[in-house]
Amino acid sequence: MSHRFVISLGCPDRTGIVARIASFLAEHGGLIVEAGYHTDQDTGWFFTRQEVRADSLPFGVTELRERFAEVARELGTDAWRISDTEQRRRVVILVSKEGHCLHDLLGRIGSGELDVDLRAVIGNHPRLGPITEAHGVPFHHVPFPADPDGKTAAFEEINALVGGHDPHAVVLARFMQVVPPWLCEQWAGRALNIHHSFLPSFAGARPYHQAYERGVKLVGATCHYVTPELDAGPIIEQDVTRVDHTDSVADMVRQGRDIEKVVLARGLRAHLEDRVLVHGKRTVVF
Amino acid sequence: MSHRFVISLGCPDRTGIVARIASFLAEHGGLIVEAGYHTDQDTGWFFTRQEVRADSLPFGVTELRERFAEVARELGTDAWRISDTEQRRRVVILVSKEGHCLHDLLGRIGSGELDVDLRAVIGNHPRLGPITEAHGVPFHHVPFPADPDGKTAAFEEINALVGGHDPHAVVLARFMQVVPPWLCEQWAGRALNIHHSFLPSFAGARPYHQAYERGVKLVGATCHYVTPELDAGPIIEQDVTRVDHTDSVADMVRQGRDIEKVVLARGLRAHLEDRVLVHGKRTVVF
Amino acid sequence: MSHRFVISLGCPDRTGIVARIASFLAEHGGLIVEAGYHTDQDTGWFFTRQEVRADSLPFGVTELRERFAEVARELGTDAWRISDTEQRRRVVILVSKEGHCLHDLLGRIGSGELDVDLRAVIGNHPRLGPITEAHGVPFHHVPFPADPDGKTAAFEEINALVGGHDPHAVVLARFMQVVPPWLCEQWAGRALNIHHSFLPSFAGARPYHQAYERGVKLVGATCHYVTPELDAGPIIEQDVTRVDHTDSVADMVRQGRDIEKVVLARGLRAHLEDRVLVHGKRTVVF
Amino acid sequence: MSHRFVISLGCPDRTGIVARIASFLAEHGGLIVEAGYHTDQDTGWFFTRQEVRADSLPFGVTELRERFAEVARELGTDAWRISDTEQRRRVVILVSKEGHCLHDLLGRIGSGELDVDLRAVIGNHPRLGPITEAHGVPFHHVPFPADPDGKTAAFEEINALVGGHDPHAVVLARFMQVVPPWLCEQWAGRALNIHHSFLPSFAGARPYHQAYERGVKLVGATCHYVTPELDAGPIIEQDVTRVDHTDSVADMVRQGRDIEKVVLARGLRAHLEDRVLVHGKRTVVF
Repeated sequence: MSHRFVISLGCPDRTGIVARIASFLAEHGGLIVEAGYHTDQDTGWFFTRQEVRADSLPFGVTELRERFAEVARELGTDAWRISDTEQRRRVVILVSKEGHCLHDLLGRIGSGELDVDLRAVIGNHPRLGPITEAHGVPFHHVPFPADPDGKTAAFEEINALVGGHDPHAVVLARFMQVVPPWLCEQWAGRALNIHHSFLPSFAGARPYHQAYERGVKLVGATCHYVTPELDAGPIIEQDVTRVDHTDSVADMVRQGRDIEKVVLARGLRAHLEDRVLVHGKRTVVF
Repeated sequence: MSHRFVISLGCPDRTGIVARIASFLAEHGGLIVEAGYHTDQDTGWFFTRQEVRADSLPFGVTELRERFAEVARELGTDAWRISDTEQRRRVVILVSKEGHCLHDLLGRIGSGELDVDLRAVIGNHPRLGPITEAHGVPFHHVPFPADPDGKTAAFEEINALVGGHDPHAVVLARFMQVVPPWLCEQWAGRALNIHHSFLPSFAGARPYHQAYERGVKLVGATCHYVTPELDAGPIIEQDVTRVDHTDSVADMVRQGRDIEKVVLARGLRAHLEDRVLVHGKRTVVF
Repeated sequence: MSHRFVISLGCPDRTGIVARIASFLAEHGGLIVEAGYHTDQDTGWFFTRQEVRADSLPFGVTELRERFAEVARELGTDAWRISDTEQRRRVVILVSKEGHCLHDLLGRIGSGELDVDLRAVIGNHPRLGPITEAHGVPFHHVPFPADPDGKTAAFEEINALVGGHDPHAVVLARFMQVVPPWLCEQWAGRALNIHHSFLPSFAGARPYHQAYERGVKLVGATCHYVTPELDAGPIIEQDVTRVDHTDSVADMVRQGRDIEKVVLARGLRAHLEDRVLVHGKRTVVF
Repeated sequence: MSHRFVISLGCPDRTGIVARIASFLAEHGGLIVEAGYHTDQDTGWFFTRQEVRADSLPFGVTELRERFAEVARELGTDAWRISDTEQRRRVVILVSKEGHCLHDLLGRIGSGELDVDLRAVIGNHPRLGPITEAHGVPFHHVPFPADPDGKTAAFEEINALVGGHDPHAVVLARFMQVVPPWLCEQWAGRALNIHHSFLPSFAGARPYHQAYERGVKLVGATCHYVTPELDAGPIIEQDVTRVDHTDSVADMVRQGRDIEKVVLARGLRAHLEDRVLVHGKRTVVF
């Protein structure tokens, strides 16, 4: 894939936004290779994401950002970002004992399908250390005591470990601890969780058991941003798979894992490519 | 399709049930053309549904029922039924103003795809009268006043109309009134509703609006038995379709209608073919 | 939905296309409410579709077309079109004996979901006359003799009937005759077929029988433009449904019908909203 | 999961088969925990698969086989098998350079989800050696020269390596060599391939390129038994995922990989659990 700059922006809708951005780019010879536009008719908010070939512009990403700031100012918004596809994205993954999502991500990263800089994996249990290290990635075990103070201390340790990498994404890959509000704030817009149900159904604990009890005919998974309200953050991606009366809870768990892996991988890819723009409780995914 | 008798049964699991039923049939030359068996490991309950060619047996459905009663007694259950595929199933449909599910069912019945005896359509609004009558089916308009007493009287009138047909299925095809508990009792195991969401998400009113607000990436529909607890009856069938940020509530409604129609049609077919066995809040669908 | 003008265009890709179109619109106050852009990297071809609020422009569709012609000339293309959402689209449907797709479309049109001017239904068999006329739509029966000359004469009659309506879409809703090349030419870009298989699998006759023989685990349907090469025109929409060993050919036919209906309806809607741009054997569907 | 014996059988259909098998089991106290029955109405062939709790029978698998042979003789068939869930299945995997299917299977085996005895991985390229060995599994590199004699020698070497393990399954996990007829014979009913298209569409080489050229709206994958006719063996499992005009061939390849992995894993699981009964070019999958 060619070297590109990715512009994403949200602003109040009005006439001429597309023209303003496109003219700015055209002026400098910028060749747009992919572009998405969306207007939320209810709220009157406009969203765009554009990929520009880096070699079509006479300057680099820093100057592009400086010059684009003027355009964004005219459009009345601070909600914009420009990234450079040659700057690899830094990622930290949090896990517990269930390894399928981690294993899946390690495979995607190892094969180059997901081209990121995986800085570390942090587990509240040591079980997934060996597989992580076999892929040449540092693993940190941060034990979680049962008492509230111990938990707070553990989260502070995790925060310090994560913060040291300044990651673009903190991935909760079946991390079974509830992230406290202060840390949700800290990671706002960067922490992605995979929940093993088709939210808002079966939020909270043991969703496959809940699904079994209710007798649903499809089970699913949801990748969403982590916010202080549990399992209620903006949804990035979801999918489902069919189950029937012959499936026990264990069968649902097994089949659901295949959905969890792919939903998390798709959500993470979209996030890292700046395809996801959050708008209240909803997301625009270009 | 050949003439068949359909046996469905649920009983406590133990060794020899399949042998007992199969031996009973084999003794009389009964040729099984389709058979489903399921054991719920949690509750220790056994379910079966078998289709036997009528012409392989030396007697008719009445004598089959008499003789099978002895087998059921041995198996310790009253939960069994035998039906005859040459006795067409009687159906009554309840509607309000939204016609897509009714139109879909009329098409399936008219073309012979769904071979039932549609006795009547009852609407709490007159709008769907003409399309119903164009298919040669009687339509009854039962207005629903806003006051509780008026509603009760309206439901009593519906109950009388429905009761007169002794239907195998009462289909709530986007009927927008909450059926009172006493009538749920009356129709227990025979009343099917189509809910325009992937339950248990978005139970109650305006599910597509709820889905839009929550920002889900799939919307769905659920066909379930009607029970006194609103939108909580045993689920027969569900399906979903993908939506994204470009879809308004109106778009979700439009796309959801295609799911509602097919989920209701599948659920109704399964019910009428005695494929659905209810077990607590769950269903076995052979 | 507000009154809109829909611009669709394909042209050789180069820097500044988006800017040129957007500036043209912005100059006149045009408010873009939906926009899609796509560049085919292999062929270097650019595609766009834009919806502009009619009341944001100081002129009507005729003047918009005159003024936009200048922009298109600069972009080096004749491949553009502007339509007006207040001018209802004229449609003619061709059928044989199978009524499910026709019934489905009549329901969508009758309920206002598909807001088109259905001018006529033409059948090579009289069977679907009554249902068509019950919806207040003229039905023409054009018998197809077995001999080649008779067939040619029949297609000439159909061509005359269709031509009299100058339709935006000629819908082959399970019309079981092979359209001759000269008529494919005549209807190029306007004739849509629904094929009852997931093309390119099982082109030609009796696709469900072919699918059964091959033992596939999913069956599908394909909506495509009609071209002289049988079942090989550009694909607009496809979908599939799961089948298994318990499904006979008749079961596959029944389940496939639900896919055919929805795939045709989606394809037709996309076509009528000018969302489909053909590019060789492929389509861009905004 | 409890210890079980799995009986699978195909025979000419007639009255009393279910009774005969069920009575045989009931006689010895055998508790059936899962049972599937199917009659192919076209060919008059009957299929069944039954799981019996081992601890409900007074003898082991060897005696069960001896005793059941008599039942099978009465039913006029040699096409039956009884396996013991406590005897782990031996598996050999063949690969080339693409590692996603192998990585996925290693993860499932490592986590215990797929409880098999993976004896060896054989590659015609050394690339996937390290990941295989990191999971503690022996890897054999068998280079494939371009000349026919060299290829034959390579296949003979593979045959010898595979034969040494007497595996229940030989999995071609994106193994890019065409297995010669003599080896297909050797591995008949035990060799599973994953083809990266929704067969019979796009058989042969570079299916995603073919799919892109044809402009399909869904791409898929197929798990099938290997037979001398290329990509034409009985299909065990298939699935698809949606693509659109924004997807390049590389995007289709990436999205298709997620389907390949899950289709292969499901197909392999079904095969190893004796759920797949082949009947001509079709399969019964219980």
